[in-house]
Amino acid sequence: MYNRILIANRGEIALRVIRACRELGIESVAVYSQADADSAHVRYADQAFCIGPARSADSYLRIDRIISAAELGDVDAIHPGYGFLAENAHFNEVCRSCKIDFIGPRPEAMEMLGDKNTARSLAIKAEVPVVPGSDGLIDDDNEAIRVANEIGFPVLIKATAGGGGKGMRVAVDQSVLATAVSQARTEAQAAFGNGAVYIEKYIEKPRHIEVQVIADEHGNVVHLYERDCSVQRRHQKLIEEAPSPTLSPEKRTAICEAAVRMIRAANYTNAGTVEFIVDKNDDFYFIEVNARIQVEHPVTEMVTGIDLIKQQILVASGEPLPFKQEDIPCRGVAIECRINAENPDKGFQPNPGKIQHMFAPGGLGVRFDSHVCSGYTVPPYYDSMIGKLIVYQPTRLEAIATMRRALKELAIEGISTTASFHDKVLQHPEFIAGNCDTTFVEREFTN
Amino acid sequence: MYNRILIANRGEIALRVIRACRELGIESVAVYSQADADSAHVRYADQAFCIGPARSADSYLRIDRIISAAELGDVDAIHPGYGFLAENAHFNEVCRSCKIDFIGPRPEAMEMLGDKNTARSLAIKAEVPVVPGSDGLIDDDNEAIRVANEIGFPVLIKATAGGGGKGMRVAVDQSVLATAVSQARTEAQAAFGNGAVYIEKYIEKPRHIEVQVIADEHGNVVHLYERDCSVQRRHQKLIEEAPSPTLSPEKRTAICEAAVRMIRAANYTNAGTVEFIVDKNDDFYFIEVNARIQVEHPVTEMVTGIDLIKQQILVASGEPLPFKQEDIPCRGVAIECRINAENPDKGFQPNPGKIQHMFAPGGLGVRFDSHVCSGYTVPPYYDSMIGKLIVYQPTRLEAIATMRRALKELAIEGISTTASFHDKVLQHPEFIAGNCDTTFVEREFTN
Repeated sequence: MYNRILIANRGEIALRVIRACRELGIESVAVYSQADADSAHVRYADQAFCIGPARSADSYLRIDRIISAAELGDVDAIHPGYGFLAENAHFNEVCRSCKIDFIGPRPEAMEMLGDKNTARSLAIKAEVPVVPGSDGLIDDDNEAIRVANEIGFPVLIKATAGGGGKGMRVAVDQSVLATAVSQARTEAQAAFGNGAVYIEKYIEKPRHIEVQVIADEHGNVVHLYERDCSVQRRHQKLIEEAPSPTLSPEKRTAICEAAVRMIRAANYTNAGTVEFIVDKNDDFYFIEVNARIQVEHPVTEMVTGIDLIKQQILVASGEPLPFKQEDIPCRGVAIECRINAENPDKGFQPNPGKIQHMFAPGGLGVRFDSHVCSGYTVPPYYDSMIGKLIVYQPTRLEAIATMRRALKELAIEGISTTASFHDKVLQHPEFIAGNCDTTFVEREFTN
Repeated sequence: MYNRILIANRGEIALRVIRACRELGIESVAVYSQADADSAHVRYADQAFCIGPARSADSYLRIDRIISAAELGDVDAIHPGYGFLAENAHFNEVCRSCKIDFIGPRPEAMEMLGDKNTARSLAIKAEVPVVPGSDGLIDDDNEAIRVANEIGFPVLIKATAGGGGKGMRVAVDQSVLATAVSQARTEAQAAFGNGAVYIEKYIEKPRHIEVQVIADEHGNVVHLYERDCSVQRRHQKLIEEAPSPTLSPEKRTAICEAAVRMIRAANYTNAGTVEFIVDKNDDFYFIEVNARIQVEHPVTEMVTGIDLIKQQILVASGEPLPFKQEDIPCRGVAIECRINAENPDKGFQPNPGKIQHMFAPGGLGVRFDSHVCSGYTVPPYYDSMIGKLIVYQPTRLEAIATMRRALKELAIEGISTTASFHDKVLQHPEFIAGNCDTTFVEREFTN
């Protein structure tokens, strides 16, 4: 087993990994930017190295400095968290060449799945349903017209290198197709340096359902059931839950088995998530594989009782998975609300600043994963998420009641947060009925 | 169901009850002393009434003022928490005469079980093993000598009205018996106004194991398995866990079934705890019934998944229990450490004062039940417990690792707490082996 792990991240996920290390008896090495010197991940690590100024490009994205810290700290492995370098195959390769284990999939699997078009081809080969669409990239407008008519409008034009909603356009009919393709290309070229696009059938009112998987280096692959992350705003997840409130038992088995097939086909190891969109008939279509731990992993931990970060570490160190598929339970309901330092009354504008006073919610069924406390200043340089409020109860209605109680209890004074917004969503009949699709927030909460 | 409940308590247990009320959609009414005006239980209740000055005798023990607040607040029921008036049968009767439901057993059951001698006779009738001892109270020294020789030395002299270690003496042989009896009588007379004593066999190195039970008003009685509370200092519990790390499956079934028999024999309703001492051979002996919710109830909640405070409220309102004995699981291991504002390096001297800064531990498997936060001043007037740190994991060793991690994470600056002491206990080979008896702390941690 490892003696020491460096965490190439900040905020709640860095603290989350430190917690797992400590419980496994592994020392932790933190890295931090000058803006994060007082953060909990620095305080609670066994050792910490400053790796540069506040800007991510000058610190958390500096591969050279992170590797230097890893060598100074004499670590056996690096956990990348999510975001920053987590899905950077080059960083992953650099770790390997420095003989430091990267806690995640191998660079080859990461690279292959990072390209959406390759991932789609792989899905088709693995008999995982994909959204009907172009057979690879679209070369010109004529091809776009032919494909779009073949699969039927509306269609979605998507950049192969895209993410977070960038490089994506809907075309409702042929008259707007050429413009949509050109806009998607331009946006993707600017954001990712790659203007290549493909076309898919546009699924109306889709739900976002993803399957957590974990694979060891001995050929064992299991799924840990699904999460429903349909409550999104501008493609950013706000509320996630496990299990999905709508999926039928048959479709649930089918989607989980499809995820395992995909992971096997990619020769993927460590934790990963296979994302799907699900239509009105519960038919599901593969979107992509997230080759890392995800923000919303705690809801899966609550219903399965499995510590995903510990398993990531154990699997990376070469341990076989300690459970088989049939040993993994799925009990009760877990819901997570992302607490962001944003003002929901002003278009979710980021609202960094000093937390004058804080009361962290507690009690039965409540988990709060956060690095912030009274007196902490949320820096303006990073993602605005300052905590994740997770609840667990035997039933979904009880979980909603516990979340509403915990949101009321969570006091954060000095900055605005999304807590009040979550409380509105939790009272909405559509959410209570468990019928949200990804258009729900924009449809119901746009003034 | 109730519309509104008054909580006749303060601190973490008041907040705990408010949480349960909120999740059930019931309004909560807090009462508070002048010293507690800024406390979380006041802030989070729907309504709050000041009932007097800091001293408990002038506020939290003032039945008249609590009933006035209940009438002003138009409540349907009162939850007494633990301590203060929780086991006061007179208060319980006053509630009944005011047509306010008391969330707990009926006054008759409370009164009967409050007398240890009556409780012992009832146990014998219910075929629940009791410590061999005098058949009722001891009238004079001659009787004491006869009984002690009959059951064999060492013996324990116990006040019938005693508690918390008061009115209790050990006699190792006949030469010290008369003195021990007279000291126990005097102490009990002074503390409880009742000098009556009885004699029991003194069990060496006993473990303290208690069984959680709940009974509804329709004749259904179930147990929720046992808690091991052997880690005590001067008869005050410090660490509690569920399940017991030592009890064999057969003895476990036997002790739980004995607890249910006892509760049935007492015609007891609502939540209660049947306390036992257990000797080296796993033989168990009834001590007493705690006719209220206990501080350590959360460890039972974690392993069974049942919210005890919600069940107390539902049962009091006349609902039948929603589960049968065979539906109640006991999964994993939960441990609780009581976080007291005391200085473990100065003989656990109370250490009230202002909390300058606090970081509440979080993450997977961690529950923190507390009313305190940064800026809160712990008043000197009450019990020194400021929080309960509870962990839950699949195995005991994992639970210990999580507790040690959470204790390290818990930062309370400005006052001393017992957190550092707990960390020492958790590292002790005897604790790790799960072999603690009630003499462990004094034996191993007295300088």
